[in-house]
Amino acid sequence: EYDAPSMKTPVPGPKSKELTRQLGDIQNVGAVNFFCNYEESRGNYLVDADGNRMLDLYTQISSVPIGVSFPSLFSQTAFVNRPALGILPPENFPEKLIESLLSVAPAGMTRVQTMACGSCSNENAFKAMFIWYKVIGNPHSHPGSTNMHSVLTVLLKGPGCPDLSILSFMGGFHGRTMGKCCLATTHSKVIHKLDIPSFDWPIAPFPKLQYPLEQFVRENAQEEARCLEEVEDLIVKWRQKGKPVAGIIVEPIQAEGGDNHASHDFFIKLRNIARKHGCAFHVDEVQTGGGTTGKFWAHEHWGTGDPADIVSFSKKMLTGGYYFKDELQPDKGYRIFNTWMGDPSKNVFLSEVLNVIRRENLLEEVTRSGKALLQGLYELQAQYPHLLSRARGLGTFCAIDARDDVTRDNLILKTRDKGVLLGGCGEMSIRFRPSLVFKEYHAHQFLNIFNDVLAEY
Amino acid sequence: EYDAPSMKTPVPGPKSKELTRQLGDIQNVGAVNFFCNYEESRGNYLVDADGNRMLDLYTQISSVPIGVSFPSLFSQTAFVNRPALGILPPENFPEKLIESLLSVAPAGMTRVQTMACGSCSNENAFKAMFIWYKVIGNPHSHPGSTNMHSVLTVLLKGPGCPDLSILSFMGGFHGRTMGKCCLATTHSKVIHKLDIPSFDWPIAPFPKLQYPLEQFVRENAQEEARCLEEVEDLIVKWRQKGKPVAGIIVEPIQAEGGDNHASHDFFIKLRNIARKHGCAFHVDEVQTGGGTTGKFWAHEHWGTGDPADIVSFSKKMLTGGYYFKDELQPDKGYRIFNTWMGDPSKNVFLSEVLNVIRRENLLEEVTRSGKALLQGLYELQAQYPHLLSRARGLGTFCAIDARDDVTRDNLILKTRDKGVLLGGCGEMSIRFRPSLVFKEYHAHQFLNIFNDVLAEY
Ligand code: FES
Repeated sequence: EYDAPSMKTPVPGPKSKELTRQLGDIQNVGAVNFFCNYEESRGNYLVDADGNRMLDLYTQISSVPIGVSFPSLFSQTAFVNRPALGILPPENFPEKLIESLLSVAPAGMTRVQTMACGSCSNENAFKAMFIWYKVIGNPHSHPGSTNMHSVLTVLLKGPGCPDLSILSFMGGFHGRTMGKCCLATTHSKVIHKLDIPSFDWPIAPFPKLQYPLEQFVRENAQEEARCLEEVEDLIVKWRQKGKPVAGIIVEPIQAEGGDNHASHDFFIKLRNIARKHGCAFHVDEVQTGGGTTGKFWAHEHWGTGDPADIVSFSKKMLTGGYYFKDELQPDKGYRIFNTWMGDPSKNVFLSEVLNVIRRENLLEEVTRSGKALLQGLYELQAQYPHLLSRARGLGTFCAIDARDDVTRDNLILKTRDKGVLLGGCGEMSIRFRPSLVFKEYHAHQFLNIFNDVLAEY
Repeated sequence: EYDAPSMKTPVPGPKSKELTRQLGDIQNVGAVNFFCNYEESRGNYLVDADGNRMLDLYTQISSVPIGVSFPSLFSQTAFVNRPALGILPPENFPEKLIESLLSVAPAGMTRVQTMACGSCSNENAFKAMFIWYKVIGNPHSHPGSTNMHSVLTVLLKGPGCPDLSILSFMGGFHGRTMGKCCLATTHSKVIHKLDIPSFDWPIAPFPKLQYPLEQFVRENAQEEARCLEEVEDLIVKWRQKGKPVAGIIVEPIQAEGGDNHASHDFFIKLRNIARKHGCAFHVDEVQTGGGTTGKFWAHEHWGTGDPADIVSFSKKMLTGGYYFKDELQPDKGYRIFNTWMGDPSKNVFLSEVLNVIRRENLLEEVTRSGKALLQGLYELQAQYPHLLSRARGLGTFCAIDARDDVTRDNLILKTRDKGVLLGGCGEMSIRFRPSLVFKEYHAHQFLNIFNDVLAEY
């Protein structure tokens, strides 16, 4: 450890200021104090990007147990020292974001906010949409101190907590937390609650399509039109109720809900409806993102240059978070905030993962093995129509329905006993979620084993 | 990578079954499929604890990007492979839990559930209390399929979503997520919403004490009695309203709210009130836990053998989560669930951190340096009464108030420019949150510098 503080510049020094400017292009930096050099930091002494060495009595909002870089912990500082990213990011953080997350940013998005899991990613994306809708989207409604105060006193009911809503779809899955419970027991900082509405939100029907999509184009188009009409009705109805829809959230493929697909046309029209009514459009790629559909993001299949205002991710991306357009940058620090705000050690892995994906052309591989898998599923459902139906998929993100839930569960178990691990979703679907190194021959390996199971059944 | 599946036993095999039994003593295992040997797993092949090698088309609910143990990722598999702990835990997981988290379990608690952050820890603890109150605490109210269905159709309003509440305190802080938003947009699985109430919860006043506590014993006891009376009134009122209080949540020291202390007597009486009214008692140690008060948990200072039913943690513990009594074990898998359920790589660090704490007697050190710090703060506030007041603390978890918020912010900045990093909390408090390797001489180092700042002010 060092033996005393040692200061070279005022804090933040020129290097921290420059890094703050750089990071400010990527995300809100309202809460950043200065940047740190964790490699040089030791024990009680935090060294900043300008070489200032400070005795640290704050320790990442009290989250460092035994000082920085404790010798008997590992040498890789990214793993040992988990910073409070919102206030004291490591100095290579902008660079790491650029080489990892931003290198795969969706079309039209230049900013990204890291988070720790899919749930907090979506929740904070909702907050960002509310803030945008209320403060940034509408210049006449800046939160005055009266509003701020009212949040604390009337708890989610006064003018500081606008009646806003998010439109979602039946069968959608956007996180398991119930946090408003947490929020309801949190009374210490007015800023955490401002612009967060109470709950009375519209839910639209998601199209129930027939598969394969190419064979039922007309029927499916009718079903999609019905759902889109309902979406517009709900937006109007909620506006009349005084709870306007600030954002629409949708998955490119409803995953937990049973692998429900919709046409590219459906999503493009939905995006246009959002634009027309002044709602933010939030695409939840927590499960579909990261290459599994054969494109890095499932929404790339839609072929539009302006797919969304917010795209959230987690899972395969190793870190949670969301990309967002410039307009959705919150106006103040601490409005989108928690202790860790993600985990930079995950970015190290993500960079390497992205390198491998590029070097080994894994997206092409996924497209190829996904085709083999889906083709095989088509053949099996033709061969065993009493057991299987509705094979569907994009890349290796495939699913097929069993006759009923009992058959589905049995097929999964029997296939597992022969050495292939499958998952269920929806009421009677089997879902396929291999990783990106799943090759054509793995698909055939599975199809052979599955064929045996079906033949014996 | 391997070239084919290879099966030795049915799945789960005997070893997985035995491990499931072991883990079942620690937490709910209703969702666990089998245990994995991640060291032996490669690419598309997952090897289980019984040596069965399976082609993996599920990949931790789709969260593994480029297969298991990709060679160019690091060799430490705990860091490279983040499992979906709720369904496919690594085989050393029970052992790791026992040697890390359970080795410091609070009195009376033998179970622990890991989570990724403080917010999801508290949220899931709330869920556990609701489930306990509704299903386990009351044998007459098992969730039938009608109830299950009603959750989905009436969305948080029918009998499946009981009107329950959690009592919390003004100034309390238990998480920043707003998740009910997430929940409100989640319609795919009925089990996620069952027993989760809508929001109308009682908030009690937290005692506003005078410091030092020893000098104002009588005045403080009166104030505490007033608050406890209010707590009982609220419990009765909410029961009459038909929204009984399932649990009470409290921090041993209100941290974000401004470092508000209460006497041991207050907490013991509060715990008794909870017991008397059949409410679960949830102590939130997210900020106070991990040794910073001189005991591993702040509630140990109360000196009672039955401090709580649930204790949540995060921050210094490196992983989030909560300890709980046997009775609060949920009745079904997937009721408390998300993809990752924490991160076992954090347990590796935690074990090492606990070793260091024991080996180097860090709790005694904290007590010693905390005394020096608080004594120094008392002296400074006597010397600069126009600037400082209300010094208070337990271990190194100390705080002092400045004259006003502007002075507070200025003092923090000026002290930082001289090389000491401090944090603010509440309206005009400075809080001290050093890590556990903060020694007496670090306290003196800070006090000297702070003295200079105050003298110049
Ligand atoms: S809510 Fe996302 S990590 Fe806790």
